[in-house]
Amino acid sequence: MVDRVYNFSPGPATLPVEVLKQASKDVVNFKETGIGLIEMSHRSKEFMAVAENAESLLRELMEIPDNYKVLFLQGGASSQFFMIPMNLLGKGKKATYLNTGTWSKKAIKEAKLFGDVEVAYSSEEKTFNRVPTQNEYTVADDSEYLYFVSNNTIYGTQFPVFPETDKVLISDMSSDILSRQIDVSKFGIIFAGAQKNMGPAGVTVVIIREDLLDKAPENTPTMLTYKTHADKGSMFNTPPCFAIYGVGEVLKWLKKQGGVKAMEAINIEKANILYDCIDSGEYYRGHAEKDSRSNMNISFNLPTAELETKFIAEATKIGLNGLKGHRSIGGCRASIYNAFPKEGVEKLVSFMKEFEAANKA
Amino acid sequence: MVDRVYNFSPGPATLPVEVLKQASKDVVNFKETGIGLIEMSHRSKEFMAVAENAESLLRELMEIPDNYKVLFLQGGASSQFFMIPMNLLGKGKKATYLNTGTWSKKAIKEAKLFGDVEVAYSSEEKTFNRVPTQNEYTVADDSEYLYFVSNNTIYGTQFPVFPETDKVLISDMSSDILSRQIDVSKFGIIFAGAQKNMGPAGVTVVIIREDLLDKAPENTPTMLTYKTHADKGSMFNTPPCFAIYGVGEVLKWLKKQGGVKAMEAINIEKANILYDCIDSGEYYRGHAEKDSRSNMNISFNLPTAELETKFIAEATKIGLNGLKGHRSIGGCRASIYNAFPKEGVEKLVSFMKEFEAANKA
Repeated sequence: MVDRVYNFSPGPATLPVEVLKQASKDVVNFKETGIGLIEMSHRSKEFMAVAENAESLLRELMEIPDNYKVLFLQGGASSQFFMIPMNLLGKGKKATYLNTGTWSKKAIKEAKLFGDVEVAYSSEEKTFNRVPTQNEYTVADDSEYLYFVSNNTIYGTQFPVFPETDKVLISDMSSDILSRQIDVSKFGIIFAGAQKNMGPAGVTVVIIREDLLDKAPENTPTMLTYKTHADKGSMFNTPPCFAIYGVGEVLKWLKKQGGVKAMEAINIEKANILYDCIDSGEYYRGHAEKDSRSNMNISFNLPTAELETKFIAEATKIGLNGLKGHRSIGGCRASIYNAFPKEGVEKLVSFMKEFEAANKA
Repeated sequence: MVDRVYNFSPGPATLPVEVLKQASKDVVNFKETGIGLIEMSHRSKEFMAVAENAESLLRELMEIPDNYKVLFLQGGASSQFFMIPMNLLGKGKKATYLNTGTWSKKAIKEAKLFGDVEVAYSSEEKTFNRVPTQNEYTVADDSEYLYFVSNNTIYGTQFPVFPETDKVLISDMSSDILSRQIDVSKFGIIFAGAQKNMGPAGVTVVIIREDLLDKAPENTPTMLTYKTHADKGSMFNTPPCFAIYGVGEVLKWLKKQGGVKAMEAINIEKANILYDCIDSGEYYRGHAEKDSRSNMNISFNLPTAELETKFIAEATKIGLNGLKGHRSIGGCRASIYNAFPKEGVEKLVSFMKEFEAANKA
């Protein structure tokens, strides 16, 4: 086995080595049953225990109240973009969206198919380099819900505090779920694709308050109503077994690290190491405004596009992978989710200093 | 490691051991990249090659014509139940369905949300113990498509020959894709969840003729139109990477076995070993009528429900797992998909003979 590289990919993203090693065993022969995890009936008592364990760990780690369901769905966070308005809107109903990046834009597009959409804030003109404070938008009285993206992977912004509203609050937390403490009871729906902070790609976690389960119009397809999946414990049809298993293993690891509170402290520490480097001079420029900075995705630029290309190539050579920024803003991006080790961040910062010294603009 | 058991599960189902072993390595460190397969960006050149390889092998093995797209989607075959009528029907449009079991019934229910549904044949009164011949139904002239389930997992029936029609022919082949040679050019859409004959759960393969990609009404959510996924090579959003990888590995294995033609011969041989045992006396009774019998799922009964319970318990003790029939018809079921070894079928037949001798009715 070659040395493990530091994988700054925005998602699917680096996973804890002990999770990978456990998966390696379980795939072939799950708990000495003589059957591999990936060929095991989802109705078997062994797999049912895997799914139940993943749910109960998530409930414990996020302190999810009893009046919320946890669903393991397919279709990615992108499918929630339409499922939410399909279930909660309808002719004449309104929803409010905060437009802070590519993923909120996509969600807004889908919501417009199902009701009136009010975009109460947008930072699009400023290349999505910030998120709003509470006094920068208002939510219409007749809005069914307020929707926002907690962390914007591409632009490296993150809501430092969440919107306060008396409406149903809905958040796409795909890129920062489990990275910081939150009060679930403030939300109507929280959803997240697993492949950044929770596990392998292929499953989306939806945490939904029970009163929102059964609001879909009658003609909604069975698979697209939340109630279908809630009633069957996410086993209405064959679930994405391996991805659910992977989430459970990541949650076990997370608990061993001290849970979300401990993780939040580590994440702040890791991000600060990088931001300190960026702020120490003029060579590197962070994309996000300081009070909107993400602790998960650090997007930054070098003096020229040529230097950025050289930077990424040389970084890759020394085992710092996946640093290329998203095509929509270019530059560089370091995604340092929960499972990304501090040593990798320190190695990146050392490299940044060396690169700057060797490549003055 | 305990001895490997023979896993007769209807799905997720047994996979080739060499696929499990390869997955065990790749999960931790894919091709010595220092990154595990399940933490690798779906946009990386390594994973793009994995997905392209899976598609090209499927095209080769099934001889899929160039005017068909191969899509790797999420949501299970159950999501195709609504996606097909959502894309192809609309107010005033009609579709014809053959009702041969639980899965066609579910598909019919969803189709009714989007158009007029004509059920041209149903074996429901006979507990779905058979499939129709061509002269047992007619397809309305104004039908957009004819829909049927190629193999009925629960009832153990299978179309020995496919319906002939000048309409668009659509088939749910979840439980027999790649198990026998078919002429893809006769079909408009073929779809199949991976977890029976193709790989782990979490991905659904849709083979769709290009003229059907862009028929969805304008207000269809982006994720639910076939064109979205076809245009982006199934990478519009993060795909279920591990499941796609698993399909690719199973297809490699299948090619080494001699491809679909060789597999069909083996499948007939395996099924005949079991049916010969069932037909050799009165003790075991097959559920399906003889000319509708499936080579994938063999559903059968013993003289009493008590004997069935005893049979399943004793079988499990000697490493013959997953033989319990579906709750809707009870009894026993042996699912013997492509990857199920002939030795397992022989062991089951030996056990059936011993059990009969020891437990006369």
